[in-house]
Amino acid sequence: MLNRVRSAVAHLVSSGGAPPPRPKSPDLPNAPSPQTAAPPEAPRSPPATAGSGSAAPAKTVEARASFSRPTFLQLSPGGLRRADDHAGRAVQSPPDTGRRLPWSTGYAEVINAGKSRHNEDQACCEVVYVEGRRSVSGAPREPSQGQGLCFYYWGLFDGHAGGGAAEMASRLLHRHIREQLKDLSCWSSQKEVTHESLVVGAIENAFQFMDEQMARERRGHQVEGGCCALVVVYLLGKVYVANAGDSRAIIVRNGEIIPMSREFTPETERQRLQLLGFLKPELLGGEFTHLEFPRRIQPKELGQRMLYRDQNMTGWAYKKIELEDLRFPLVCGEGKKARVMATIGVTRGLGDHNLKVCSSTLPIKPFLSCFPEVRVYDLTQYEHCPDDVLVLGTDGLWDVTSDCEVAATVDRVLSAYEPNDPSRYTALAQALVLGARGTPRDRGWRLPNNKLGSGDDISVFVIPLGGPGSYS
Amino acid sequence: MLNRVRSAVAHLVSSGGAPPPRPKSPDLPNAPSPQTAAPPEAPRSPPATAGSGSAAPAKTVEARASFSRPTFLQLSPGGLRRADDHAGRAVQSPPDTGRRLPWSTGYAEVINAGKSRHNEDQACCEVVYVEGRRSVSGAPREPSQGQGLCFYYWGLFDGHAGGGAAEMASRLLHRHIREQLKDLSCWSSQKEVTHESLVVGAIENAFQFMDEQMARERRGHQVEGGCCALVVVYLLGKVYVANAGDSRAIIVRNGEIIPMSREFTPETERQRLQLLGFLKPELLGGEFTHLEFPRRIQPKELGQRMLYRDQNMTGWAYKKIELEDLRFPLVCGEGKKARVMATIGVTRGLGDHNLKVCSSTLPIKPFLSCFPEVRVYDLTQYEHCPDDVLVLGTDGLWDVTSDCEVAATVDRVLSAYEPNDPSRYTALAQALVLGARGTPRDRGWRLPNNKLGSGDDISVFVIPLGGPGSYS
Repeated sequence: MLNRVRSAVAHLVSSGGAPPPRPKSPDLPNAPSPQTAAPPEAPRSPPATAGSGSAAPAKTVEARASFSRPTFLQLSPGGLRRADDHAGRAVQSPPDTGRRLPWSTGYAEVINAGKSRHNEDQACCEVVYVEGRRSVSGAPREPSQGQGLCFYYWGLFDGHAGGGAAEMASRLLHRHIREQLKDLSCWSSQKEVTHESLVVGAIENAFQFMDEQMARERRGHQVEGGCCALVVVYLLGKVYVANAGDSRAIIVRNGEIIPMSREFTPETERQRLQLLGFLKPELLGGEFTHLEFPRRIQPKELGQRMLYRDQNMTGWAYKKIELEDLRFPLVCGEGKKARVMATIGVTRGLGDHNLKVCSSTLPIKPFLSCFPEVRVYDLTQYEHCPDDVLVLGTDGLWDVTSDCEVAATVDRVLSAYEPNDPSRYTALAQALVLGARGTPRDRGWRLPNNKLGSGDDISVFVIPLGGPGSYS
Repeated sequence: MLNRVRSAVAHLVSSGGAPPPRPKSPDLPNAPSPQTAAPPEAPRSPPATAGSGSAAPAKTVEARASFSRPTFLQLSPGGLRRADDHAGRAVQSPPDTGRRLPWSTGYAEVINAGKSRHNEDQACCEVVYVEGRRSVSGAPREPSQGQGLCFYYWGLFDGHAGGGAAEMASRLLHRHIREQLKDLSCWSSQKEVTHESLVVGAIENAFQFMDEQMARERRGHQVEGGCCALVVVYLLGKVYVANAGDSRAIIVRNGEIIPMSREFTPETERQRLQLLGFLKPELLGGEFTHLEFPRRIQPKELGQRMLYRDQNMTGWAYKKIELEDLRFPLVCGEGKKARVMATIGVTRGLGDHNLKVCSSTLPIKPFLSCFPEVRVYDLTQYEHCPDDVLVLGTDGLWDVTSDCEVAATVDRVLSAYEPNDPSRYTALAQALVLGARGTPRDRGWRLPNNKLGSGDDISVFVIPLGGPGSYS
């Protein structure tokens, strides 16, 4: 596997794609200058009472904004305008000509149907070189000092309340991961601490440092919103999938579906949110209750018995209604309408440091976690064929497409191409995006079954796990 | 399924086994009088520095103690002495003659090899009648008001630092469950809230109320210690397995193993414990750090880089050592030696309200959770044969016996009996206990492979899931 890495690096360098600059400190002096500041919008369609920016200040911000798409799309000014067109919703992919993405990765995206001013998804795909950490006085012996290593990196970032956080993360998160992975050179086998657990820890910490950097620099970068982050790192034979938010990754292997992430929403994280509200009631500001009820309680029901769940319970039980049970519930709503503090529908991700409860000064951020769940897949444990792929998609894909439908599309599209045709993975990504977007009909974007397609931004990576086109 | 329940109840009543008394309020006025107060011992073998009771006060307590075993064992005074004999370690089961346990359940137990003065495990097996809750003024309509229902109940309680908590729980926890289940009669179908989730909630709340009762009445009952609780409720076709502690339940079905619980230890609950220490640092009293390190840090390492994990991380990363990292870690040790605050090796259960960190006034209880994890198994979804069983065991069984070894013993013992022989499940429980205890040889209790057998109390229920002997 190391040979695959080395040859890939050699290829990358020879083809002119130099490794990204290497800052000597974790302060990332190469952070890009402010680029994007879409008008602040309420994240994940909050209720109509949400105080979204009025027209005037939105315009002010708009004047400074410069819309951008991933550089690997190599968009011309005209292409950038087409990518930004809500009416046409043209699917974008890297050009057939020129350098392919590593591993012949397929990518496609489409802008939303008017939900936000710009496409708030962002993407990144890089081969990243990690220099070994220099010796620190008094630090443990560093056997491989000076030796570096490479990792492959894919990231999808689904922004909300503006595209700034997603763009910042797409430019910087892999650099934080690189910074953390420098410590791998200090590693010598210790009880409990495996090489794999160090990579997991490096990714976890990189998410945290990325989030802290957003907090520090959000004014300079005009990062008002936040973003979900779904990241894949390939290093020394293992694929690490890190997810913070409601994007999703699955492996389709020989037709079988292997989930590589789970979604973090107010419903799936109810108990974590309730525990925090219970232990730190000051975060609820006397306006919210950490308890969950099947429906909003009316003042006239005071003293009656009502079903509830607290932070410890998965089942429901009855309690007598007290005055503070009349407060608004910390977690309410179901499915895509579930919200934390009536405000946000996703509970992990980066940014959102300024996000407040509607018409209130209560901060939402303490309830959001920037930490991803990391799952590991050992590529060496299975002989992969060219049709085995890892599919990453933002919720625009998954809102209207099941895992099984994705697996069926994988089979249908890939079988129409020669196994060694490197363009098949881009064709697959396009088919997935088109299948989720649908076609304009009956005053909306509709799927073949006449249901509504996704009106959200949709972004998809298709990463081949055993294709002969990898590294070509 | 309801017919099975009704006929079983009819049988129970006709055979003289009246349902337990039904207190009209949840205050359980029928709580037993003080019975047991073994000398206080450090729970789950804490380090030698633990301040266990000195000889004098232990004797004082001892004078008041009255050792007891489950009533269904029907032990004579001589039998009780044999059950209390650490040297002989005779395996105890209900007598072949007389009334069998419901469902022809098998049970066996053996005392420890000297680890504590008495057997600190307790067990309970009951058929419990639940009266519908009376109408409350202003409460919702109660369609089935006045109608009752029955549930089957099995409980294993593994005490530590004395047998008082285990004994109290074995006498009262099913009454709390009964009290909670009265609310089932108020249930009418609501979104999200299924019948099953109400039973789960009832069991969860019953554990909490049991724990609160122990806190209130611990002086009167001389309940100094705590206990793990593993409980099974069968109601209307479904088996609910609730576990708080390090006991374990598995189903062996057609040779296949289905785990029905997981263990709660400082290792498996590390992140929950660390989160609590992080959010409520006052609970650590300036003596402990919520961070985990691979080893204890030396003062001379201040300022150096060291691997660590916090409450958000599953992987390891490096940090610079600061002064407060020199504190004792909240969670330390591995496997059976893992401890919370260097004191206790199990993180869920009932009681332990007086437990303090060794040589300190810091309470342990805030880190222990009384809430069980409840798993549900639908008996009607599968055609069970007489060899399909649910096995419950305290850690005395599982410390030296794997799930696979238990499944092999199930196969070996049950195949030696006729399928309709109701004594086969007791024989199986005995075989499992004997297999974990071993035989006295080479100055110890040893297994056939010459490894040490379990020196702990060992208790096992074998519940047949499809035997013809059920309810006989």
